[in-house]
This record gives sequence, structure tokens and C-alpha cells, in this order.
Amino acid sequence: MSIETIKWVKGCARIIDQTKLPVSLEYIACRDVETMWQAIKRLSVRGAPAIGVAAAFGVLLGVQKFKGNDRLKFLKLFNETCDYLATSRPTAVNLFNMLNEMRAVVTCNPMADVPTLKKALEYQAMAIFKDDQDVCRRMGDHGAKLIKIKMQCLTVCNAGALATVDYGTALGVFYTAKKQGKKFSVYSCETRPLLQGARLTCWELQRQKIDTTLICDNMAASLMAKGKVDIIFTGADRIASNGDTANKIGTYMLAVLAKHHGIPFYIVAPRSTFDLVIKSGKQIPIEERKSEEVTHFAGVSTAPKGIKVYNPAFDVTPANLITGIVTEYGIIRPPFVKNIKRMIG
Amino acid sequence: MSIETIKWVKGCARIIDQTKLPVSLEYIACRDVETMWQAIKRLSVRGAPAIGVAAAFGVLLGVQKFKGNDRLKFLKLFNETCDYLATSRPTAVNLFNMLNEMRAVVTCNPMADVPTLKKALEYQAMAIFKDDQDVCRRMGDHGAKLIKIKMQCLTVCNAGALATVDYGTALGVFYTAKKQGKKFSVYSCETRPLLQGARLTCWELQRQKIDTTLICDNMAASLMAKGKVDIIFTGADRIASNGDTANKIGTYMLAVLAKHHGIPFYIVAPRSTFDLVIKSGKQIPIEERKSEEVTHFAGVSTAPKGIKVYNPAFDVTPANLITGIVTEYGIIRPPFVKNIKRMIG
Repeated sequence: MSIETIKWVKGCARIIDQTKLPVSLEYIACRDVETMWQAIKRLSVRGAPAIGVAAAFGVLLGVQKFKGNDRLKFLKLFNETCDYLATSRPTAVNLFNMLNEMRAVVTCNPMADVPTLKKALEYQAMAIFKDDQDVCRRMGDHGAKLIKIKMQCLTVCNAGALATVDYGTALGVFYTAKKQGKKFSVYSCETRPLLQGARLTCWELQRQKIDTTLICDNMAASLMAKGKVDIIFTGADRIASNGDTANKIGTYMLAVLAKHHGIPFYIVAPRSTFDLVIKSGKQIPIEERKSEEVTHFAGVSTAPKGIKVYNPAFDVTPANLITGIVTEYGIIRPPFVKNIKRMIG
Repeated sequence: MSIETIKWVKGCARIIDQTKLPVSLEYIACRDVETMWQAIKRLSVRGAPAIGVAAAFGVLLGVQKFKGNDRLKFLKLFNETCDYLATSRPTAVNLFNMLNEMRAVVTCNPMADVPTLKKALEYQAMAIFKDDQDVCRRMGDHGAKLIKIKMQCLTVCNAGALATVDYGTALGVFYTAKKQGKKFSVYSCETRPLLQGARLTCWELQRQKIDTTLICDNMAASLMAKGKVDIIFTGADRIASNGDTANKIGTYMLAVLAKHHGIPFYIVAPRSTFDLVIKSGKQIPIEERKSEEVTHFAGVSTAPKGIKVYNPAFDVTPANLITGIVTEYGIIRPPFVKNIKRMIG
């Protein structure tokens, strides 16, 4: 794969500025935690696994300029950095899970001095980075088994290399199937309001020479009715212990439509996207974003001034509409409460 | 109502250029049939009933410059004009129905000379115009009975004053309910790719001081799951004799979602939108429009160059997902084959 969504280069987190795609491929060099926080907030880096890695690197950025060996002062800065990064976005649990992994480094090394802690944190962040690369390829292997010859697949938003370090969750399934020489095609829902499907998924799939057709979100139902969708793969931002899944707005719509048309509907997400503390999707906080995302495009107004807007960035798909969840450990199928616990609990 | 979507003013059809809304309210003066054809094709005038009226006025524009009294030559020009207008858009049956009404004038007056035919055609076009005004208000009266206090309604595309002469089909129901003093609110699906919901419906409803909230199409399912949609009203472009209904892409999606969530789903359309010749929706031709509508916005590229696009402008909602069809004669309910025949056959 030639896409390096996020990378740690000598004290600097280099990320692709996804707000600029597909028009231009530009990078942002994050040298402090504020730049990373902004990058997460404004979706320069997005996608639950990528946000998790970005948060880990963000912690490194926050503490790397600390001078001296005062452990208490260092911990204060460390905790403030973690708390600050946690305010960037609310829904994707990877953010919090990866911050917790970073916190665990500190908790588990109560006697370590500041230089040792810094080293250990960098080691942990790099482990999170490498783990994402590995985990995505394992999900790809499991998920690719679901793709049969000439299948017409559908996906929403971007659950690809751009949503992870470099390979993807849902799109990773396509990449692995492609490597295996399978012939199949993909419909990409454009994913309003910010068009991650049109801008990011189409860009990625085109680069990988996968047969891709772009549709507007409201065309998916019609495609299904025509028998043009055989299987659906989406990513996830947070999966509750009962299998309820928060993902990009429009995912729930696809799941309901899939049920109506008898089409299998799969989530592809690593263990780091599970929130086993919560019992159901009702407990997942759903980010609402500013109305300008809906009322304007490229600075042009597309709605009358002053109109009210409802702009949730995510929705929750109840587990009973999900055929299976592809993880790095295998495909989890219903009953989800039991099988999630068994496979990743 | 202060919206005059289409109007005949001294040999000229004046239409609102709907491609410019909501940024500016501009008019196009159509003085020849070619200008009208272009206006229909590029959606300066759109909405099935408005297209029907536009076609009738287009016929007048096509024949008004005819000099002399050669009936055969006049008929040749007349037929060419009708045939030409019929190529502007394929799905909305009102276009063909109104052209047929204009043709009937000629057919029914086999002895009339050219000046008489011209007068009769103008008389017929004005009757079509006035009939639309009347019919919309009658649909409003029937439909408004369905709106109960504090109801949260949902609509898609624009089935309002801008889709008719000046009142609307689905939105006409809201206007009548509002006049009756009922309190209710409306969610408007933005309606990709051309955003008729955001640009036109929000603009209209805001002018009428109706409590309106704009959503992206992929948010409707989530709203329904939250119990925020009590009833759905949409317009129609062509209704088959079994009740199958072609309407703006995304309508079928809403109908499936409505069924899943137990929400009543109503079509609002006049008799002129029915195509009683065809048995089912399978026989309705669905217009596919150019890919740039999806891949570009305001001249800005929103997808990688060369990506394939599927861009149907309409979809077909099967009758079994429709709760009722509000017409000027009353509300038609299942069984549709029998009741459509009874009420308007």
C-alpha cells in the first residue's frame, strides 16, 4: 500500500490532510498536541482506528518538550495532555481506548523516571501504530472469505487506509480479496455531508484499481431493489458489548435497507473499536456537528440563511440488523452478547 | 402565496430559474420553445406538475410565430413542437399527459382554421395552468386532514409551489394545515445530488414560516429510529395503475424505512401524474443524469477524476409500501388497483 495516513517521523506526527482529498494529496506536520487536536477535530485525520493512533502520537507530542526529571510535574502534563485529546471527538471509542493504553504505561511503571517514561510512551505509541497495521491485515484475511466471485459490494464513508494507519477495515477486506485475485465490484456511498465516500473511498479504491462506482446515499435502496448489491461492509466507531454499532451517519439506513432486501450486512472493526463497558448502543454518545457542513459547500450556500439543521455525525445500528462483525480474531456472529465476550472479552 | 413558479405573460412564459435558488430569485423569460426545452432539461423548471404546465406553454411558444392560414403546415409545426418537448425529460408523465391534452385540442377541432386553433390552444394551456392551481388546493384540503397537532412530518425533494404553478402537492398539504392554524414541524431531506430539498423546499417553507429542519438524506433513518417522524409526504412523477410510484431518487428509501419504523407514508399527486396505461412501476422509464451532478459541486470536484457514477434521478416505490395517495378527489387507499380505478379511472 502506498498510502501512509499517519506516521511518526522524528518527534513529528505526519498526517495526510484528508480535507484536501481528492483534489490534492497534502501532509500536515503535527509538532505539538494542539495541532493534532485541531487535525482530529476538523477531520484532517478521521476514522476510528486512525484517530486512536493519532491520539497516541498526540500524547507523545504533548510530553516530548517536557524538560527535567520531576515525575509529578511530568504526570500532571501527561494527564492534562490525555484529557485534552479526549475532548477532540466523542464517538469513536478508539480515541479513549488508545489514551487508556498510554495511561497504562504510566500506571504500570510507578517507579520509572521521566526519561524512562518518555521512552516507554514512545514504545507504546509505536506498538499501537504497528498493531493497527497488523490487525487490519488480519481483518482483511477473515473478511475476504466473504467475497465471492463477481460480488457487488457496497460500503459507506471511508473505512480504508485513510481511516487507519495504511490498510483499512472494510476496505482492507477489498484489498485482500483483490490480492487473492478475486473479481468483484464496489459501490461507494458518497456519505453526506462531508463526502468521505466520494472524496476518500473512491480515491483509495481507484488507486488500487478496484472496480468502483460512486452513488449518492439516497440511491442505495434503489440499487438493492435492482439486485445490484450482494453484500455490505462498513467500518465502526464504537461497538457496544451487545453488538450495537455506532458508525458514520447513514450506516443504520443501509442496515435497515439490507434487511428489507435480504442482503448480508457486515461490520469490519478491530478489538480497539469495542466498548465492552457499555451494554447497548443507547449509551454511545453521538457527535452533532455544525450546521455549515450541511448548508454550505466550498463556501457556497446550498440552503436558505437561518434554516435549522440536524447534523449528527453518526448513527447506531442495532445488533439485530448485523449479519456479522469481522475482527482480527475472526468473524463474530449472533448471538452477539455471548460471542463478543467469547472472542474478545 | 407569493411564489409564481410559471406564468404566461403576453406571449412569453416567465419561469423562476430554480437553479439559482436559494441564493437569488431570478426569472427566465421563455420566448421560444427551445428556451423552454432547455429550461426543463436543466431543471430551471422542475417538478412533475410544473413540467406539465411548462410543456403546455412550450407548445404555445412553438406555434405562436406561425404566419398564415395553412392548416397542414401549422399541424406539422404543432406536432414537431410537441414531439420536441416530449424529449426534454422522460419520467414525469405530466409532461406527456399535458402534451396529449394540447394535441386533443387539435384533434377535436378538425375543421378549425389556424387562428382558431391558436386561440383554442392558448385557452387549453391557460386551463391547464388554472387547473393546477385549483387541484393543488384541493389536494391540500384532503391531505391536511392527516396532519394532527404537533406532528413531525418529513418530505423529500421539492413538491411545493416551485413544483407546480404556485402551491404544491406535498407542501400544499403543509400550507393548508398551516392556514388551518395547526402546529406541526417538517424535516426536509436535502435530496442529493441537486439539493432540491435544501435549496427549494427549505426556502419555500421558511417563507411560509413553517418550522423546518434540514437533514441530509442519510439521516432520515436515524430520525425515524428516535421517534421524530410521525408521517411522510412526498410528491410523484408518475403513478402506475397499480399504485407503484416513481418519484425523486431517495423516495423508495424513505418508504422502506417508513415501513420498518411503522410510519405512514403518503404520496400527494394530482390525476395528471397517473399513468393508467401502465400496469406497474416496472414500465416507468427512469432518467439517468450526467455524472457531474454527483462528482462536482459549484465547479469544485468532490470525487477523483474518472470515477464511475450511477445517477438515476428517480426511483420506484412499490404500492405495498404506500399508505395512501392524496389526490384532488380524495385519498386513495389500498387496494390500489381497484381504488385508483374507482376514484380517477
